[in-house]
This record gives sequence, structure tokens and C-alpha cells, in this order.
Amino acid sequence: MDILKEKIVTDGKVYPGNVLKVNSFLNHLIDVKLVTEMGKEFKRLYNDCEVTKILTIEASGIGLACVTAQFFDCPVLFAKKESTSNLSSNVYRTGIHSYTHGNDYQATIEKDFLKAEDKVLIIDDFLASGEALNGLIDLCAQASAEVVGCGIAIEKSFQPGGKELRAKGVRVESLAMVSSMENGKIEFDN
Amino acid sequence: MDILKEKIVTDGKVYPGNVLKVNSFLNHLIDVKLVTEMGKEFKRLYNDCEVTKILTIEASGIGLACVTAQFFDCPVLFAKKESTSNLSSNVYRTGIHSYTHGNDYQATIEKDFLKAEDKVLIIDDFLASGEALNGLIDLCAQASAEVVGCGIAIEKSFQPGGKELRAKGVRVESLAMVSSMENGKIEFDN
Repeated sequence: MDILKEKIVTDGKVYPGNVLKVNSFLNHLIDVKLVTEMGKEFKRLYNDCEVTKILTIEASGIGLACVTAQFFDCPVLFAKKESTSNLSSNVYRTGIHSYTHGNDYQATIEKDFLKAEDKVLIIDDFLASGEALNGLIDLCAQASAEVVGCGIAIEKSFQPGGKELRAKGVRVESLAMVSSMENGKIEFDN
Repeated sequence: MDILKEKIVTDGKVYPGNVLKVNSFLNHLIDVKLVTEMGKEFKRLYNDCEVTKILTIEASGIGLACVTAQFFDCPVLFAKKESTSNLSSNVYRTGIHSYTHGNDYQATIEKDFLKAEDKVLIIDDFLASGEALNGLIDLCAQASAEVVGCGIAIEKSFQPGGKELRAKGVRVESLAMVSSMENGKIEFDN
């Protein structure tokens, strides 16, 4: 998606350790006009999939998920991050490792809100190691809900997450696939 | 706002300790169609205020803020919650006490993203004690940005937050004002 890639090149910042900071338009300050265009593009890609629910995880995926849901005319469910173990039996839970924060957490959703008849589009702002997406896919599996695919704003395609998910047969559509950030120069696969 | 009040009555759940759970349509599963109507209503209320930025706090305010921002054609900035002290000097930070979780946390925004020329509409899903709103207002004060007002989905008007803010001269518009939840019966002020 050209306008996203242009924005990444002009406003993204590369830091040591392959860190790409896009907090001036995606995950702190949010360029809602750009995000709306991204939602439209996800609708074009998944138009035929009869999506009944969009699933994301707090916090930075929520805006993109809600705007995208307007085009699918469906609700958004966001998994909650919990640092302490939730003993409630009315939630599905999955363990996720965050490479960004160097910790593990539990992501939970209430069982009532995800059902076997749901066709789920998973939306997130970033895909790198795939930890968060795998957790969200696991929550869908626990609910016997069908995952029609994943819609990602920015995939770091030089990290293994996307490749591994596609190898497992999961449809992953990433609007910008960053293939390299060497010497601060951002290059794309798509 | 009648459709929100009807939704609260039909789908909200009252628990001991004046807890009102609306996670089936507002802050876990999100009824994006309803949230879009709420965004339109905030636009009607604050139409003349030349809003340049919408400010909220993660996580459950982000969806409402992004959908609302579409009507104002402006970006969203969300304050980040940090349990550890952030020593970075390029952020504004404020301490907030959470009565819901019984803890204190720091909310931060990058200085680059909020400026003295900004006219800020603060959006959040709930107003009870006013802790979060006061923190967001403090962040705006640190940036010398003007707060044109606050747009709240549900205010618990039997708790002091809204009254205290209005007494200080802050404009607060709440789409549903819950005045009582005694014996599980939800009543409204507006």
C-alpha cells in the first residue's frame, strides 16, 4: 500500500536492534485518515470472507481494528493483556511473549464474545516474531472460531513470524512488508 | 443519547460496589456501529471548537477516539500507561490512581505530539472519580495546549469526577449520565 510505505519512509525512525518507530502516525499519535485508508484496503482484500468479527489485542491495534470494522459492519473484540494470572473460568487465555518489552503476559477474551460460528479477521499494527498473532489464533481455536486471515499494517518480513504463519496455511495480508532497515534505509518486499 | 442509554439498560450489568459492566458493547467487545453514532454526537457537540487533536488514554478509549476523530478530521493521541517510571525527558508524564485496579501508574505522551497551538478534545469511555481525565488535562497543561472539553460515553454522575471538573470550568459532555444503580436498576440524569 503505497501511501503507508511512503509514510514509513518519511516519518518512520529506525533505531539500533531493528527497531522501527512509527509512533508519529500509527501507535501513539494516530493518523486516522491514513488508518481509514488501511481499513478500506483490508475490506478490499477480505471482502468475500463473510467476516463476522474483528479480533485484535490492546492497545495499539484497537484504533485500526475499529476503523476497519466500520467497512465490514461488524464488531471488534480486543484481547486484554494481563500480567497476573486470571483465574476466571469464563475466559479463554493464552500466553504471549513480548520481545519488545521482554516479558510474558496472558491475553484473555470472554468466552461469551467469541463463538464457533464466528468468522474472524485478526487485525494488528505490527507483525515481527508472530507471538501476538499466534496467541490470537490460539484464542480463536479455543472458541472453535474460524480465522479467515490476518490484516497487518507493517510486517517486518526479515523476521520469521509472517513466513511461519503462511507456512501453516494462515492467510496473512500485510500492507507494508519491510524487508530491510540496514543502515537506517528502509526497504520493502511488496 | 437515547440509543446508548437503551443499550446500557438492556446489555449493561450491575455488580456489587457500583460496578457497571458494559464490556459486551463498549470496552471489550465493541459495537462499532454504536460507537460511530457516539462519534457523530461528539462532533455535533464540539463542532464549533476547531478541534485539532483528540486525546485519550489506552486502552478502551482508543476505539471511540479514532472513530470520533474521523468526524473532526484530526489525529488521535493516546497516553500510554506505564507501571515503571519512565526516565525519558522527551515525554510529559502524570500520575494517575486507578480505583478499578487499585494501583497507581504513570501516563505519558511524547512532547513532540502535543503543542501549545493544539485545541484538544479529550475522549474516554468512562468518567467516575475523574482521575484519568484530570491526568489527561494535566498533560495538556504541561504542553500549554488548550482543552476545549471532554467527551465521555458513560458518566457515573453519583461519583464526584464530573461535578468537580465542571466546577473547575472544564466542559464535560457525557452521552449517558448514570445517576443510580441501586438494586441493579440503572437510572439516568440526562
